[in-house]
Amino acid sequence: MNINGKSHRTIWLHPKNNLVFQIIDQRHLPHRFVIADITTAKEGARAIEEMWVRGAPLIGATAGYSMYLAALEASKSGDFEAYMEDAAKMLLATRPTAINLHWAIKRQQKAIEGVENIEDKVRIALQTAKDICEEDVVISENIGNHGLELIEAISELKSGEVVNILTHCNAGWLATVDWGTATAPIYKAHDKGIKVHVWVDETRPRNQGARITAWELGHHGVPHTVIVDNVGGHLMQHGMVDMCIVGTDRTTYTGDVANKIGTYLKALAANDNGIPFYVALPSTTIDWEISDGLMIPIEERDASEVTYIQGLHEQEIKQVLLTPDSSPAANYAFDVTLARLVTGLITEKGVCEASEKGIRDLFDSK
Amino acid sequence: MNINGKSHRTIWLHPKNNLVFQIIDQRHLPHRFVIADITTAKEGARAIEEMWVRGAPLIGATAGYSMYLAALEASKSGDFEAYMEDAAKMLLATRPTAINLHWAIKRQQKAIEGVENIEDKVRIALQTAKDICEEDVVISENIGNHGLELIEAISELKSGEVVNILTHCNAGWLATVDWGTATAPIYKAHDKGIKVHVWVDETRPRNQGARITAWELGHHGVPHTVIVDNVGGHLMQHGMVDMCIVGTDRTTYTGDVANKIGTYLKALAANDNGIPFYVALPSTTIDWEISDGLMIPIEERDASEVTYIQGLHEQEIKQVLLTPDSSPAANYAFDVTLARLVTGLITEKGVCEASEKGIRDLFDSK
Repeated sequence: MNINGKSHRTIWLHPKNNLVFQIIDQRHLPHRFVIADITTAKEGARAIEEMWVRGAPLIGATAGYSMYLAALEASKSGDFEAYMEDAAKMLLATRPTAINLHWAIKRQQKAIEGVENIEDKVRIALQTAKDICEEDVVISENIGNHGLELIEAISELKSGEVVNILTHCNAGWLATVDWGTATAPIYKAHDKGIKVHVWVDETRPRNQGARITAWELGHHGVPHTVIVDNVGGHLMQHGMVDMCIVGTDRTTYTGDVANKIGTYLKALAANDNGIPFYVALPSTTIDWEISDGLMIPIEERDASEVTYIQGLHEQEIKQVLLTPDSSPAANYAFDVTLARLVTGLITEKGVCEASEKGIRDLFDSK
Repeated sequence: MNINGKSHRTIWLHPKNNLVFQIIDQRHLPHRFVIADITTAKEGARAIEEMWVRGAPLIGATAGYSMYLAALEASKSGDFEAYMEDAAKMLLATRPTAINLHWAIKRQQKAIEGVENIEDKVRIALQTAKDICEEDVVISENIGNHGLELIEAISELKSGEVVNILTHCNAGWLATVDWGTATAPIYKAHDKGIKVHVWVDETRPRNQGARITAWELGHHGVPHTVIVDNVGGHLMQHGMVDMCIVGTDRTTYTGDVANKIGTYLKALAANDNGIPFYVALPSTTIDWEISDGLMIPIEERDASEVTYIQGLHEQEIKQVLLTPDSSPAANYAFDVTLARLVTGLITEKGVCEASEKGIRDLFDSK
């Protein structure tokens, strides 16, 4: 999508040095637009862990490129297999909830497994990293096209009046390689001239909504309003939300959805007010092994993300303390929305019911 | 309750000058403890509007003292009645949702109505302001005693293990004259040696939970943990909350509860997980005229409360910008939790069902 009128992705191989990949360092948004060079697998792991990049698909893409850098390093280490195993472990340990992390690392492992020549392994790892990114763009566009139909239907029901869509966190193009998951249908609708307006949950504690979703929607010209996470229920009670679309970090094959903390509360409110609640996801986000969403491990992050917040003061990005010095804080990063609260899953293959049958019908048959 | 070991109220007549009242200016909490002199009715209105004081009972108490200052000013104005009418209008316009504001102003108007002598009017207005405060303390203590029984029952069911209580916003002693409403049962339980732990919703956008509830619980030694507003649903899904207690700005005689934005979402989660959801309130908060909670006017406050946040940076309180410059924000201050989601109302007269019958049985008969 566009930044200051120029087309960008969120991750790419350095145009002049294919031993390096580049990312948008999202920690500085919306106040600064910073591009970071990633030169080692360890830096890649750090970028994931410290959330320079975030969002399940982009975490997968970053892990893909980091495994390529690991292969480069492994080729000089003397013990390729052992080095790669350690690198995979290091990357896996960065974010426990994101299923795409596992998926991308496994895909790299499988791609180079059995390849004899180490140079070939490195070459294949680079190609695989590129493939993961290209495929992700296609997936996001397809999610966009399928979700567009849902927005169009609501727009027709409202005789072309503005369709109000609530989203939580950032499942935008900055969470993927391009287009986004939850935002892809919104961009497609906006580009097609359908009137849309997005309620952007700020998404405490890290404010990915207020910082990132608002920023990317603004750059693309999509009308939007930032709200605190507490507001969605009130808006839904008063007919000010036509649909919700969120992303997911991991969805069970039974349709339970792990997503950014607070998603569950919005799904409850949508359910209570008869408002459709959709989850947009690439099929790489589906966990085919866990049947009960409440068994998905939920990452606990540092309490300082709750007690401190970052913002702009006199043109400088500063951290300010929000709480009394002596008050402890807890920081659960995700919650689980059970399938019964989800109207449908918007995937690259189409829209399906959030149930084992719905998911298997869509993915086993195609 | 205690601050640094010294007993305090939130509002009192100046000990050396009875033409002035004093309040804790809560805008600076938790980083600074500031006492402000209020010397005119207009300053009182400003203190309410700009939230130096907040919380329905304390707004009522502040309006009570402000009407006393208005009477002082009116006695020198030449037209006592006209001056008082203007002052009442000015005070009423400060916070549209708080029913106690209406109640306290009306009480002052009735108290001095028909009194011939202007000096007597002023004297009566002072006594009424004092009475409102003293009565509020008694009400809070009674709420505390009735709510204590509910906590004791859960503690017994858990064989004395810690009772985990979630609260939203600040319905603490800093929202009343002393003890609080939602916190009164918690202080009573803690003082009695019952093990309690409080999950404190930070309560965006103004963070009354993270700033004020955490501060007052900490000063009283009550174990607590600050969480972002998004977390409560996850905690409830995992058995980490035994009960919710919140306050209210206005409750209809049918049991619908207007409270700080986000309360509705927590009530939905409690309902979904079979967790009792109590609302603590003085009967002054009951609106005997509105039957449908969704008809209660909801205050919209300035968007800057969403886009900027206040915190401590290098020992100075600073405002930082959270959002992109060009992104608009909306700021609805309250939402309504319908009676069907409320387990019970904890009042100064006892605990009752959140229904017209429950409320009338408790208040009509006593």
